[in-house]
Amino acid sequence: MSTQSDNLRVVLVSTRNPLNIGAAARAMSNFGFLSLRVVNPYEVAFREARSAVGASAVLQKAEKHSSIAKAIADCSLVVGTTTLRQRERHHPLYRLEEGAQRIRTSLSTTRVALLFGSEKVGLSNEDLSHCHWLVHIPTRDAHPSMNLGQAVAVCLYELVRGWKPVKAKKTPVASSGELERITTVLMETLRASGYLGRTAPVTAEAKVRRLIRRMSLQDGDADLLLGMLRQILWKVHSNG
Amino acid sequence: MSTQSDNLRVVLVSTRNPLNIGAAARAMSNFGFLSLRVVNPYEVAFREARSAVGASAVLQKAEKHSSIAKAIADCSLVVGTTTLRQRERHHPLYRLEEGAQRIRTSLSTTRVALLFGSEKVGLSNEDLSHCHWLVHIPTRDAHPSMNLGQAVAVCLYELVRGWKPVKAKKTPVASSGELERITTVLMETLRASGYLGRTAPVTAEAKVRRLIRRMSLQDGDADLLLGMLRQILWKVHSNG
Repeated sequence: MSTQSDNLRVVLVSTRNPLNIGAAARAMSNFGFLSLRVVNPYEVAFREARSAVGASAVLQKAEKHSSIAKAIADCSLVVGTTTLRQRERHHPLYRLEEGAQRIRTSLSTTRVALLFGSEKVGLSNEDLSHCHWLVHIPTRDAHPSMNLGQAVAVCLYELVRGWKPVKAKKTPVASSGELERITTVLMETLRASGYLGRTAPVTAEAKVRRLIRRMSLQDGDADLLLGMLRQILWKVHSNG
Repeated sequence: MSTQSDNLRVVLVSTRNPLNIGAAARAMSNFGFLSLRVVNPYEVAFREARSAVGASAVLQKAEKHSSIAKAIADCSLVVGTTTLRQRERHHPLYRLEEGAQRIRTSLSTTRVALLFGSEKVGLSNEDLSHCHWLVHIPTRDAHPSMNLGQAVAVCLYELVRGWKPVKAKKTPVASSGELERITTVLMETLRASGYLGRTAPVTAEAKVRRLIRRMSLQDGDADLLLGMLRQILWKVHSNG
């Protein structure tokens, strides 16, 4: 169990309230998940939370990153949290119960990032494009949106609730860093080939990023695909 | 289910921090439990929480009682929450998972009170003497004590979790025909770009075919990918 817990990164994106960062860290410590990463927090909030009296070890060791891509670069599975009502969906969406089961399976072999968005708007479409799939906590339609610290506590509780010794040995899957490299080269190829205009909107990039994440590429396949794309791109450029 | 939810009273005993009362009320609203009772709260805390901007209906309708006995007078089952380490035990103690199952059973026929103690010391022995039995959340030995609002959220989540049937949501996957078209176009692109020689062995084609199959492409994604590849191939050819 301890290695599996070590493989989870809780990633708080654009958190505004220091109390929520502190609450998230406390729940992490309660349930034995010690690796916290914050992306682009409200600067004062992060400093305050970190320097609070009795700030936990989790908080003191928390890493700050300037982008989601950097915060999840070493993770092979990236899961976003959302409410059912939130915006248009482009991702598979699981109830927490089923999502946690999938996360646990992955944690036995690889690093997993669990993303929580800001208090006001949750994860943006750009944020979500880094995710392989989403989970939602089964809240009431009349009041779906949970407090951030409470949402973190519930998700981690569900993860711990179902721990069972896992035996399966799985094929290692590609890291987010590799997937992002594939995304970049494919975008460039699509532009160079005229599939996308030179000034393709950011939504196009998000769409491509999600496509690549949905492929559940294995480690070696990511290499293979990247090699193919680089050669194709070289050809498109050299002839263009 | 709605009657069962109506039968639960969440009882906060001697709460000190208004934010925790507010957080408890929010989690209750999220999970559909609307009856909150506070016993002997720090007076200012309760007034503040109740008058906070956007105080929920739960909070506005919360009842204040001067003793536990009065707060639970209409309940037939009284359950206390505790950490494993807390004081000497005179009560049966269940892990939340099992306790919630028992509470759900009772809720179908009778009113149940779920008690949460103060932030600092939890429920006192006097408080516990009103309880039929206790539940604990399975936290880590090194840091067992949860934030009050988070503990309420986790307990209510566990109650709701066992209520709803889980419905699987599946995305249609691409047909073998589509996968083969992708394979064909990708092979042609790889040849045209020089990644594969004109006389690439059949083993190369099999390798590409397996790669595409391992991607577990969804139905729409197969279309998307095929469109991209056709455009790229056209560009490679037209310039070649």
